[in-house]
Amino acid sequence: MEVANDETTTMPQPITMKGGDSPQSYAKNSILQKGVIDATKGMMIHAIADKLDMEKLCSDLFRIADFGCSIGPNTFFSMQNMIQAVEQKHRQTNHQTALEFQLFFNDHSSNDFNTLFKSLPPSWPHFVAGVPGSFHGRLFPKSSIHIGHSSNALQWLSKVPEQVVDCSSSAYNGGSIYCTGTETQVTKAFASQFENDMEIFLNARAEELVNAGLIVIIMGGIPDGISLSQTAIGKFYDLFGSCLVDLTNKGLINEEKVKSFNLPLYFPTAKELKALIERNGRLCIESIDEMSGQMKRVPTLPSTQNYISHVRAGFEGLIREHFGNEMVDEFFECYGKKHLESGFVFGENAVDNTLITVILKRI
Amino acid sequence: MEVANDETTTMPQPITMKGGDSPQSYAKNSILQKGVIDATKGMMIHAIADKLDMEKLCSDLFRIADFGCSIGPNTFFSMQNMIQAVEQKHRQTNHQTALEFQLFFNDHSSNDFNTLFKSLPPSWPHFVAGVPGSFHGRLFPKSSIHIGHSSNALQWLSKVPEQVVDCSSSAYNGGSIYCTGTETQVTKAFASQFENDMEIFLNARAEELVNAGLIVIIMGGIPDGISLSQTAIGKFYDLFGSCLVDLTNKGLINEEKVKSFNLPLYFPTAKELKALIERNGRLCIESIDEMSGQMKRVPTLPSTQNYISHVRAGFEGLIREHFGNEMVDEFFECYGKKHLESGFVFGENAVDNTLITVILKRI
Repeated sequence: MEVANDETTTMPQPITMKGGDSPQSYAKNSILQKGVIDATKGMMIHAIADKLDMEKLCSDLFRIADFGCSIGPNTFFSMQNMIQAVEQKHRQTNHQTALEFQLFFNDHSSNDFNTLFKSLPPSWPHFVAGVPGSFHGRLFPKSSIHIGHSSNALQWLSKVPEQVVDCSSSAYNGGSIYCTGTETQVTKAFASQFENDMEIFLNARAEELVNAGLIVIIMGGIPDGISLSQTAIGKFYDLFGSCLVDLTNKGLINEEKVKSFNLPLYFPTAKELKALIERNGRLCIESIDEMSGQMKRVPTLPSTQNYISHVRAGFEGLIREHFGNEMVDEFFECYGKKHLESGFVFGENAVDNTLITVILKRI
Repeated sequence: MEVANDETTTMPQPITMKGGDSPQSYAKNSILQKGVIDATKGMMIHAIADKLDMEKLCSDLFRIADFGCSIGPNTFFSMQNMIQAVEQKHRQTNHQTALEFQLFFNDHSSNDFNTLFKSLPPSWPHFVAGVPGSFHGRLFPKSSIHIGHSSNALQWLSKVPEQVVDCSSSAYNGGSIYCTGTETQVTKAFASQFENDMEIFLNARAEELVNAGLIVIIMGGIPDGISLSQTAIGKFYDLFGSCLVDLTNKGLINEEKVKSFNLPLYFPTAKELKALIERNGRLCIESIDEMSGQMKRVPTLPSTQNYISHVRAGFEGLIREHFGNEMVDEFFECYGKKHLESGFVFGENAVDNTLITVILKRI
């Protein structure tokens, strides 16, 4: 048995949100994600009530896993919503015994599990565990999870497709930091990476779910026939990219570094996601829906400073990993200024992104 | 659902080892504990091979939990030893299917799980999870663990018995920082706390173990008829206490603070532990043994500095919690000097502590 140490860890760091519980942490800057949870709460409770087959599951123990849980507290709200739905169903089907819940919080091993564990709701009457590792792979024993959940996580790819940062490739994306959806070869490369990642994700979850177990996926998407660059999220990445260009012009970062930087993100359409799941065929689609206006559902952000902290909590790790420590403050300062100048949070001039919600069942 | 925050966390911090992977961390300073694992490896493999009833367990999935795992890497060595023993037994009983292992690492939620997860052996082909919480209580669903394990952890009490720090009590222990074993009322108070803690531990594990599941306990003890103050560990605590007195004399800490400080530790005899387990009666004793000379089995420590780092990794949290941050460096400096002057690591003038090894089965 080998024990890992600094020397053997040569893999690039996976993307995780900013740890700790400082004012800049993800834990204190995830109100957009909380908006998503609130917006989908009703749908999730209804879907579980409707689709959960208590007879087939035949268990007094429910194991629920959140894939890509990050630091909290959103993952606790999601878990609580699922528990509420299962308990409601359990009461309806007149089971006499009390249910036990074992809750698994999964994210990369570089996620701040210490903060997650310390901020667990006090006196929570459930068994909890943290599971380190990528959800692009197996994380649990066969047939051991009753309900899987993943919110705001599956749009993150396991990696940036190699072609888009290879200047000799026809899919080279030197002019942008994300998959705008306007360059066919680039879009194909990102879509293909997403397809591979989803295939791995679905195969792993199909093994892990018990018979008749459910998985609830909530993820960002785009309306059919629209490119990401036309949407609010696309406009946000454009602004983000322009700050990198500004820092290059100031001589603070190398141009090549910017050209080799791409966000490992892909936002599919609901139709595209449905086709992928059907082609995989290992999990049955119980429902797939699109919700528009996700950004408009987000409560008003209290201040520009808070909004910038929010952005920083989500992206600081990624920026730091690629460009080093020196430029991070300057980068977010530049972003803050541009954000103010443009008066842009999720402006009216952009198409709103969609929220895709999927319920899958293992049959 | 309430979400914990700094304001609601008013409980005293439980004892955890020094986190991170710095030269002062527990992860890099736990060679004494590694000595214990090496010394008991043969016993454990033999005991699992001998006592594990593969027919009754009837599962291709083995869930193993380490209670009080701390930061690593010792917990990984223990897990590996148990896996080796189970796989060996599995081969002998000619099962055709491959076994899956799900490994649970338990310690207080203030344990450094981030470091634990980051230092997991690379490419370990097992499913892992961290479980935050005190093992003096339930941590897992009913009948869900096949093998439990606890090494060097059960001598830590859930708290210092109240009477020993109450100057109006006949069990007041103002003259010492630990249960020396020479003061009857003090010893009774510590023994009673240990009895309560063991009762809670055994009841919880009895619920969590599957039918025919095993639990392996390895813990520090004392030979029958000997008081802790006569042993090497007792001498060590005496030296430790004398440094607190020195710092009081220097005016660096308040005398009352020293009088109210006691180590939440209790070292039983094997006979005493056996009686407690039998009285509890929920788990059947498959074997209980005493191993003497545990300290003499420890490989020579490379330097005094390393030895002091080792002591600090284990006790810094406890000292800091009671006395505050200001005196910590001075305290360990004082300890280092005294250690050198006395030429004492685990000298010949002290009785060696014993290592108690217990195998319990749920019937």
